[in-house]
Amino acid sequence: MNPKPGVSFITLGVDDLERALAFYRDGLGWPSRGIVGTEFETGAVAFFKLQPGLTLALWPRASLARDSGVPLQPRSATEFLLSHNVASLAEVDAFLQQAERAGAVVVKPAGPTFYGGHAGYFQDPDGHLWEVAYNPGYETLG
Amino acid sequence: MNPKPGVSFITLGVDDLERALAFYRDGLGWPSRGIVGTEFETGAVAFFKLQPGLTLALWPRASLARDSGVPLQPRSATEFLLSHNVASLAEVDAFLQQAERAGAVVVKPAGPTFYGGHAGYFQDPDGHLWEVAYNPGYETLG
Repeated sequence: MNPKPGVSFITLGVDDLERALAFYRDGLGWPSRGIVGTEFETGAVAFFKLQPGLTLALWPRASLARDSGVPLQPRSATEFLLSHNVASLAEVDAFLQQAERAGAVVVKPAGPTFYGGHAGYFQDPDGHLWEVAYNPGYETLG
Repeated sequence: MNPKPGVSFITLGVDDLERALAFYRDGLGWPSRGIVGTEFETGAVAFFKLQPGLTLALWPRASLARDSGVPLQPRSATEFLLSHNVASLAEVDAFLQQAERAGAVVVKPAGPTFYGGHAGYFQDPDGHLWEVAYNPGYETLG
């Protein structure tokens, strides 16, 4: 039997856990209990509930390397992308502006996309790429 | 008003779209319509529906770089981690074995975790880290 498609946690490797927590909790305003798990050697982590069944975790890159057994590697922004869909054009701009005030770098301002939506990109303080998109065609994808 | 916490798409940067598609569709058995969007210059992509409201996308790293404007960078396995929770210890082993047969590298065999669960790690053909976990305490996190 094949495993059911699904992801329960998206864990971002971070260089500075306090700074990353501040960006998502204080800058974007996403609720979090803050740093937990400090009783374990590689345990310090911060969680954010996203939609039901999905949690975002911030975890030091060094802990991720140590726990998984893969060597710690330099940053790479083209590894992956997280997309956040919003309900209107105005919300794309508002999100990008809020991210920028919180310390993100807007690498591509909001504009029309090749697939017919409207989106912009930012990098969080660890260089992770986010796309903020208004994409009325979303339901037809996949 | 703060943006609502959420992620609609997780996009993995890949070096070889056909190979990545084969791993997830044929190897893991996750349904996909295959490569779509080839009518656009950076459009070729493959989608997989995960749980409701979340889609996995495979997109060439070069397209991700081009569309976002960030430079194409070498692979880095410690950027992020996707965790797939299963319902039993046996399913952890079964998923890891299936991933290995499909071409993944199991970098950490299934075993007890420091937080009380049971998990193993693999890297997909592009080096992206997945954790397969049986974690009865999941609902208390976050």
